[in-house]
Amino acid sequence: MSPEEFRAAAHQAVDWMADYLRDIRDYPILPNVEPGDLIARLPKQGPEHGESIDAIFEDFRNVIVPGLTQWNHPRFFAYFSNSASGPGILGEMLAAVLNANPMLWKTGPAAAELEQISLGWLRQWLGLPEEFFGIIHDTASTATFHAVVAAREAAGVTAAPLVLYTSEHANLSVDKAALAAGVQRGNIRHIAIDDEFRMRPNDLKAAIEADLAAGYKPFCVVPTLGTTSSTSLDPVPEIAAIARRHNLWLHVDAAYAGPAAILDEYRYIFKGCELADSIVLNPHKWLFTPVDLSAFYTRRPEVFRKALSLDQAPAYLLGASTNAVNLSEYTVALGRRFRALKLWFVLRYYGREGIAEILRGHVRMAREFADRLAAHPRFELAAPVLFSLVCFRMIGSDDENRELLERVNRTGKAFLSGTVLKGRFVLRLSIGNIATTFEDVLETWELIKSLVPAPQSLPDDAPER
Amino acid sequence: MSPEEFRAAAHQAVDWMADYLRDIRDYPILPNVEPGDLIARLPKQGPEHGESIDAIFEDFRNVIVPGLTQWNHPRFFAYFSNSASGPGILGEMLAAVLNANPMLWKTGPAAAELEQISLGWLRQWLGLPEEFFGIIHDTASTATFHAVVAAREAAGVTAAPLVLYTSEHANLSVDKAALAAGVQRGNIRHIAIDDEFRMRPNDLKAAIEADLAAGYKPFCVVPTLGTTSSTSLDPVPEIAAIARRHNLWLHVDAAYAGPAAILDEYRYIFKGCELADSIVLNPHKWLFTPVDLSAFYTRRPEVFRKALSLDQAPAYLLGASTNAVNLSEYTVALGRRFRALKLWFVLRYYGREGIAEILRGHVRMAREFADRLAAHPRFELAAPVLFSLVCFRMIGSDDENRELLERVNRTGKAFLSGTVLKGRFVLRLSIGNIATTFEDVLETWELIKSLVPAPQSLPDDAPER
Repeated sequence: MSPEEFRAAAHQAVDWMADYLRDIRDYPILPNVEPGDLIARLPKQGPEHGESIDAIFEDFRNVIVPGLTQWNHPRFFAYFSNSASGPGILGEMLAAVLNANPMLWKTGPAAAELEQISLGWLRQWLGLPEEFFGIIHDTASTATFHAVVAAREAAGVTAAPLVLYTSEHANLSVDKAALAAGVQRGNIRHIAIDDEFRMRPNDLKAAIEADLAAGYKPFCVVPTLGTTSSTSLDPVPEIAAIARRHNLWLHVDAAYAGPAAILDEYRYIFKGCELADSIVLNPHKWLFTPVDLSAFYTRRPEVFRKALSLDQAPAYLLGASTNAVNLSEYTVALGRRFRALKLWFVLRYYGREGIAEILRGHVRMAREFADRLAAHPRFELAAPVLFSLVCFRMIGSDDENRELLERVNRTGKAFLSGTVLKGRFVLRLSIGNIATTFEDVLETWELIKSLVPAPQSLPDDAPER
Repeated sequence: MSPEEFRAAAHQAVDWMADYLRDIRDYPILPNVEPGDLIARLPKQGPEHGESIDAIFEDFRNVIVPGLTQWNHPRFFAYFSNSASGPGILGEMLAAVLNANPMLWKTGPAAAELEQISLGWLRQWLGLPEEFFGIIHDTASTATFHAVVAAREAAGVTAAPLVLYTSEHANLSVDKAALAAGVQRGNIRHIAIDDEFRMRPNDLKAAIEADLAAGYKPFCVVPTLGTTSSTSLDPVPEIAAIARRHNLWLHVDAAYAGPAAILDEYRYIFKGCELADSIVLNPHKWLFTPVDLSAFYTRRPEVFRKALSLDQAPAYLLGASTNAVNLSEYTVALGRRFRALKLWFVLRYYGREGIAEILRGHVRMAREFADRLAAHPRFELAAPVLFSLVCFRMIGSDDENRELLERVNRTGKAFLSGTVLKGRFVLRLSIGNIATTFEDVLETWELIKSLVPAPQSLPDDAPER
């Protein structure tokens, strides 16, 4: 493809992209497809001869896009809502043409340093101490996995089985990270939570003591700031004190809630994190950066290097600068994309104040939604609204709530998800897309209400409350 | 950023991108910068208030780009040369605006299925059996790490220390993968290579037997197809037979050479791979796909699932389809980018025949370069030219060769790398960029020759030959 053919095709692509952003509310958020539909529609073999870019674009528009869940839709309220903002997309476009691979400083000096610069800016905005070294991972799962590997390295060689602690409400990525690092399935302790879904420090302490008495080796604890089910905040200061006493690696999973610490009124959530060995938060969740970009900070970068780098550089990397940070020495992956570019675009385009204003807007919308909901006789809140997630249920059975969720999602007009809190099925409405407006939230509230079955239609099914 | 502001900015970006592709030969490949230069030039703090996209673009062009190593340059011949082709870049652009995250089938049906479709097409082109399940990882390092985790799972719980086997010339990612999975540093065996840099099967056999006798647990062997130093091919059929006898997981690292199997004349390289438990190859290396995209195939996907997925789905993922493949169940990372799109664009735009023609051209260019070099009295080949990499040295000392490499790279006109073969420093010229022409290679050959010091200028330094 010549540069001029690329130019023409890329301008065409950009017009589609801008149209998509403009018209996105017209797309059903969840596609009307069954497993295997796309496989059945596309050829079983790849083409022997090349095809025109127009033909590929046409299939993209007509076959691929209608089969997608529209993550960038302002009424995508499921899981943790997120967004690819304009400046973030521009950063991705430019990174793609550069194809930079800053695995070593020498293989991408400006890319390697921009990673340190942009994560440094973000660190300051979050109020984290200067000694935290920043590095970008694809996802919080991968970042947490690296933390567990470093924790294992820091624990040293031991015959006693390693035990990791997290809460009942930790993200499954914590379990995956521990399993991948070789922690036995039975040695991941899910500490009980309190009434507001926070890890109980006394239970943590008791579990560690019991494990020590039984000959295990406690080595790592992972509290969460902003749990996936309810955005609850584990009590990091207490957990940090316990970790310090028992010499456990403290990794804080702030994947979702971390960016909130940019706001003065949320700065408190990082209390105790100055004692953490590592912290992860996801600009691709609540910081308008296209997936994938996790910001990982650690006070102990040398442990990662020791765990993962070789005693000497391989022959084929001879001549790489040694007086600069080579990012791949701190990660399993040798190759790296130039991810810092999109984050730098986002941080500069919006600025600290601009980002704070958008985050505040999301929190405000969540509270407005929660207020309306709490005031309605057929609904109840299922968890405190700490950030931009509202957990709620219709007063009624789990099946009725599951059915309500299905009805809402089937409209294609909004996409919510569910979870279980205190043994009961609840709905989750998560606000995090940069294009979400108050009107989006209000209309979704009207939609939800309109899909609640009339009480008399369910005579045999008394409310559980 | 409104859709219309995005449209205007993105058209501007596209013009820069097309200009960059057109004018890329004008850029010095290696930037003239020292560690810390960018850090010194950019503000120490992020901006309080948002900035205009024009200001950001200006800094991108004037400060970032000149500080990069230009990976997409047709005379980037270092490491393994690669490229972001036009269709691949278009795929990345569209993926960025969609922001799809096909972690579960339900969260991106068409994205999840396109991953299976595009890896299926590629699998057929490579001649791999149908039972190989394909999944995309960011890098071969991550893919190999997953293979080692699956190998560990397949080995079962054992008190004996796990031992992994690879060759002296394996990529460092194999060591990293083993370390990350918890294999002790001393239990990674680097089996000796023969005169053509291939793992010696008899040495592998002997090492396994010695380890078994000493109470170790051999669990995994990783041969390489296309080693990083010289593109040598480990003898997979013999290694597979040994792996089978001792019940070792066989993971084949075909990161670089794998795509060559698309050509009839290279189909032989995958001989024995039908017995492999897993194979990785990198479309972002020699298949014109922007970094990052590694294609990973396994005959035993269930082992990955067993190693990494939880006994039951977490509450917040309730309602996810269970009668479809949920890709994140096979990986450490829960979130996933829509990477399949760029690969699908590349496979369709070029077609099998088009890709084969480009790969053949690269091999032809490498042979032409090697022929000229072999015929020159001051140079010698340092390894067989099996694919598109030429390893060579100037007849002279290691220091002279290192100095020659430095001189070439300092011109900014070409970027080669070095390695050590048979104890001697050699230069590597790797051809893999889709825009590389025969003229690029010939002019680089002229450049290299022009930088060879006159023999009389080195009276005290007799050639070692």
